[in-house]
Amino acid sequence: MSTEVPASLRVAPTPDDARLTRGVTGVDETGASVALRVVEERPLTIYLNAREIVTAMTIGDHPEWLALGFLVNQGMVRPSDVVTGIDHDAELQAVVVRTAVETDHEARLARATRTSGCAVGTVFGDMMEGLEDLTLPATPLRVSELRALSRAVNRTPSLYLAAGAIHGTCLCAGGDPLAYFEDVGRHNAVDKLAGWMRIAQVEAGDKVLYTTGRLTSEMVIKCALMGIPSLVSRSGFTAWGVEIARQVGLTVIGRMKGSRFICLSGAERVVWDAE
Amino acid sequence: MSTEVPASLRVAPTPDDARLTRGVTGVDETGASVALRVVEERPLTIYLNAREIVTAMTIGDHPEWLALGFLVNQGMVRPSDVVTGIDHDAELQAVVVRTAVETDHEARLARATRTSGCAVGTVFGDMMEGLEDLTLPATPLRVSELRALSRAVNRTPSLYLAAGAIHGTCLCAGGDPLAYFEDVGRHNAVDKLAGWMRIAQVEAGDKVLYTTGRLTSEMVIKCALMGIPSLVSRSGFTAWGVEIARQVGLTVIGRMKGSRFICLSGAERVVWDAE
Repeated sequence: MSTEVPASLRVAPTPDDARLTRGVTGVDETGASVALRVVEERPLTIYLNAREIVTAMTIGDHPEWLALGFLVNQGMVRPSDVVTGIDHDAELQAVVVRTAVETDHEARLARATRTSGCAVGTVFGDMMEGLEDLTLPATPLRVSELRALSRAVNRTPSLYLAAGAIHGTCLCAGGDPLAYFEDVGRHNAVDKLAGWMRIAQVEAGDKVLYTTGRLTSEMVIKCALMGIPSLVSRSGFTAWGVEIARQVGLTVIGRMKGSRFICLSGAERVVWDAE
Repeated sequence: MSTEVPASLRVAPTPDDARLTRGVTGVDETGASVALRVVEERPLTIYLNAREIVTAMTIGDHPEWLALGFLVNQGMVRPSDVVTGIDHDAELQAVVVRTAVETDHEARLARATRTSGCAVGTVFGDMMEGLEDLTLPATPLRVSELRALSRAVNRTPSLYLAAGAIHGTCLCAGGDPLAYFEDVGRHNAVDKLAGWMRIAQVEAGDKVLYTTGRLTSEMVIKCALMGIPSLVSRSGFTAWGVEIARQVGLTVIGRMKGSRFICLSGAERVVWDAE
């Protein structure tokens, strides 16, 4: 498959970055020696002001965006909070996100204890908040754009193509990829995107979020809270993910492979413009 | 592909259990109506004695084994702890694991706060403990057995085959599957297995752990701490996972597809007995 970086892509994967993969040698099923590249995985501890919040396992690129996006997606940094600085210390494997005034995240942090180790990997109690009064724009989703973005994302040079065992997420405008992030955890990739969107002040209401990960309740909630009205995945669904998507009016497309897909929520916003 | 439940399987997936999947309708890429089954996903809150520990997202089967296995794999219930009862309340979506004496998990719980939301989904700080003085038995792993277990697992009727979007893990004795668990979170499936092994008092040192999930540092650590010397996956590797496996002497086989695989750790224990 020929690969190319879409002209629309403002943030692209960097599969050639030597810090993100490691060359290892082993043997194959015949006992013959094989050499391959595998993705790195290292801890990154995220601080909000003076408080240690979480240690995430990450490939290590875009630590500032990952830290900010995690805090934003957890509701620990609110839209009204003024971020005064984000400092990454590579040696300490830590990022400190600073806000003008202390946030009200202490109460949330207390709750975090109760969901630590959650199978889906983030603070679920908080995630549900704000869904009740959420209204997503009824942005149309064209089948022609779905095919275009899927093709563009899959053909973009990536760590997935170079080393595998990694998740990706890509923010798209119609059929055009804008920002493509990868990480060992599918949620890290989305959190990096959220951090970038906050810094770059990218409008969410007219975008499409593509993920390689499954459409679980948490992924659906995260996408909805980010204000992105359309969620597309090459993977499948969970029942609760579908249920929540229907409640909040999120268009959800799964099992997207080539020109094939299944839409289980928000089909009324899909425009059937492809032959 | 013809499916059959291996005679050796003591715990098999139950894809026909109506509580584990939900029928949903949507549309495909042509706009035609489609009906499919998707896996359920529901919260389960795990208590250790009087203390609420975690809320996991799970398909909902084997809640007692999931709760016990989670606590065992997190080091919150130690081998020396006497488990006096495990009570599941389906209405409250909660499981209470009771021990004869209070465990020393409070300190661990405090640490859990700091890794909540960890990309890989469990309490990493605790996971690393006990690795230093860990010695795994040098149990041989025959290529013929690898092929047999891979074929047997893939042909076993499962939620994966029925609905997809789910992870599976299977404990095997040589090429024979013994216990096969599935869940929305790959770690839940392993935790259910750990709970079952603790209750059924299954010896770990002569077994093989098969998982559909990636061989991340956390999966490698969990397998090693469970005392299982061989870890096999159809998915790929991370660099740290490989590094830790080599440190603890865990045989790690990845990208297992049909008769093909790659071994990046412990190849000296692999017996090349297949044609």
